[in-house]
Amino acid sequence: MVAFGGNALLRSGEPGTYENQLRNVEQTCAQLAHLLQRGYDLVIGHGNGPQVGNVMLQHEAGKQLFGLEAMPMDFCGAETQGSIAYLIETGMERVLRRARLDRPVVSLVTRVVVGADDPGFQNPTKPVGPYYAEAPKDGAVYREDPRGRGWRKVVASPRPIAITNIGLVERLAREGCIVITVGGGGIPVVETAEGHRGVEAVIDKDLACALAAIRMKADEFYILTDVPKVYINFRQPGEQALDTLTVADAQRYLSEGQFAEGSMAPKVRAGILFVQNGGRECIITEAGQLDNPACGTRIIP
Amino acid sequence: MVAFGGNALLRSGEPGTYENQLRNVEQTCAQLAHLLQRGYDLVIGHGNGPQVGNVMLQHEAGKQLFGLEAMPMDFCGAETQGSIAYLIETGMERVLRRARLDRPVVSLVTRVVVGADDPGFQNPTKPVGPYYAEAPKDGAVYREDPRGRGWRKVVASPRPIAITNIGLVERLAREGCIVITVGGGGIPVVETAEGHRGVEAVIDKDLACALAAIRMKADEFYILTDVPKVYINFRQPGEQALDTLTVADAQRYLSEGQFAEGSMAPKVRAGILFVQNGGRECIITEAGQLDNPACGTRIIP
Repeated sequence: MVAFGGNALLRSGEPGTYENQLRNVEQTCAQLAHLLQRGYDLVIGHGNGPQVGNVMLQHEAGKQLFGLEAMPMDFCGAETQGSIAYLIETGMERVLRRARLDRPVVSLVTRVVVGADDPGFQNPTKPVGPYYAEAPKDGAVYREDPRGRGWRKVVASPRPIAITNIGLVERLAREGCIVITVGGGGIPVVETAEGHRGVEAVIDKDLACALAAIRMKADEFYILTDVPKVYINFRQPGEQALDTLTVADAQRYLSEGQFAEGSMAPKVRAGILFVQNGGRECIITEAGQLDNPACGTRIIP
Repeated sequence: MVAFGGNALLRSGEPGTYENQLRNVEQTCAQLAHLLQRGYDLVIGHGNGPQVGNVMLQHEAGKQLFGLEAMPMDFCGAETQGSIAYLIETGMERVLRRARLDRPVVSLVTRVVVGADDPGFQNPTKPVGPYYAEAPKDGAVYREDPRGRGWRKVVASPRPIAITNIGLVERLAREGCIVITVGGGGIPVVETAEGHRGVEAVIDKDLACALAAIRMKADEFYILTDVPKVYINFRQPGEQALDTLTVADAQRYLSEGQFAEGSMAPKVRAGILFVQNGGRECIITEAGQLDNPACGTRIIP
C-alpha cells in the first residue's frame, strides 16, 4: 500500500494546469515503478487536499455566477476521486508502457465509513472551502479566520472504521492489478437505518490508507511525503534522520511533540496503527527515494 | 447491461440539490431492483449530460472568480464519473438493503478509446460548456449560437472503439457484483506513442454502453429513457408503439427519419449495434416499466 498527497499532482507555487498535473503524476508513477520492478503488488491511495479545495471554490463560484447548486463536501470529494484516479491511471499506464511492464490499472470509487458518534463531529476543527464575509446560515459550522480573511466552514476529521470493497481491492491487487482507491481518504459516510449517508468531513488519508493496508494484510505501507526520512529535532540543532523507529520510540517522540501536527505527526500515527495491527513495516520517505530498497524511515513493531 | 441518462438524476425543471439527486437515483435503482430479483447480473452505464455541463460552468466560474485553472472536458467528465457513481452506489445500496438483497456494488473509473482519425474530429458539432461573448483563442473550435446567446465550444462525438477494464467488469458482474462503469460514455482518450491521451469529446453513452454489452457478451441491453416504448409517427397521426423491432425494420425507420436525432435515433442505433454483434435483444423502455418482464420495445436480429 502506497499513500501520497494530493500535492504530488497539484503543487503549490505552480499553475495547476492539466499538463503540469499530468507531468507531476507521471513522475510519481515512474518512482512507484521501482516497486513494481521489485515484484510488489501495488495499491495506491492518495490525498485530495488542494483538489477538493478547488472543487469547493468552483462550486461556490458556479453558484454565484450561474446559480448552480453548491454540493456538499462528500460529493466534491467523489468528484476528485474520479479526476485524480483518471490522471494516475493515465500516468501509470504511460510509465508501465515505457518500462515494458504489463499490469492492468483499475480505480474504484471508495466510501469510508466513520462513526456518527465520532467525537470530531462535536468539535469540528478542519477548515475547508471558500472564505465568506459572513458565516452562511446553512447548518454547517463556520469559524472566523484568525488572519482576517473571513469565515470558513470547519468540518470534523473522524476516524475511519471501514472501507467499501476493500476485499475486492485486495483480491485484484494480489492478482497483479494496480488498484487506485481511498482517494482523498475516502468519501466519508455514516451508517443510518436506510443505509450509508454522506457527511461533510475530511478523513486523514494516511489513516484511511493504513486501515486499507491492515484490512488487506499488506506487508508494507509506504507513506510518501516531501522529505526522505523522519527526523527528530527537525530543522533545529541536533537534527537527526531516523532509519528505523520502533512503535515505542515513535509514541515517545509524538508525546514530546517532535513531529508537526498536520504534517509528520499524522503520518507517524498512521504508521504506528499499521504495525500495531499486523503490518511488517511502514516506510515514510519521498517518492524520489523508492529506487533504493533501504530508503526512508521504517516504523517497526 | 443497463444504460440510463444523466437526467435520471439531475432533472430539468427541478433544483439539482443533493437531496433531489439522491431521491431520483434511489427511484431509478428501485426499478433496477426488479431485474436483480429476476436473477440478472447487472452492469450499469450512465450519461452525464447535465452534470458535465454544470462542472464545465463551475470550472469557468472558478476561473473568473478565483483564478483557478479551467480543466478540459475529459477531466470534467472524470469528475462526474466519481460523483455520479457515488450517488448510484448510495442509492443502490439503500434499495438492496430494503429488498434484502446482498450484492456488492462497485464503480470503476472508465476510459473509452476513440480513433484520433475519427471523422468527428474534423467537423465537431456537439456544443458543450458555457456561452462566451467572444470565442476564446485556446485552440478549440467555437460556434456562434443561432439563438444569439454567444459562442460555445463544439466538440466531436467520436465512435467508441475500446473500453478500459471491460474484461474485469464482466468478471465482477458474473460473480454477482453490480458494476457501475462507462460513466458519461467514458472518458474519451486516443492512443499515442506515449500511451493514452485525453481528448475533448462526447462519446454517446448508448453507443459506449452497447460496446460494453458486446464485449461482455451480455444477453440483454436495456436503454432507459422517458417513454415506455419506441414509436413510429411519434406524436403524429398514426402513432404506433412497437413491441418488437427487427434490425431491418429499425434501419428502414431510421432512414425514413422516424426517430429524432439526439433522442431516440442514437438509442435505436445502439440497439442495432448490440444485436448485430451477438446480443440477444435490446430493450428500450422507461425505468418505471422494469417490473414487467415483457416491457418496452425489443430490438431483435
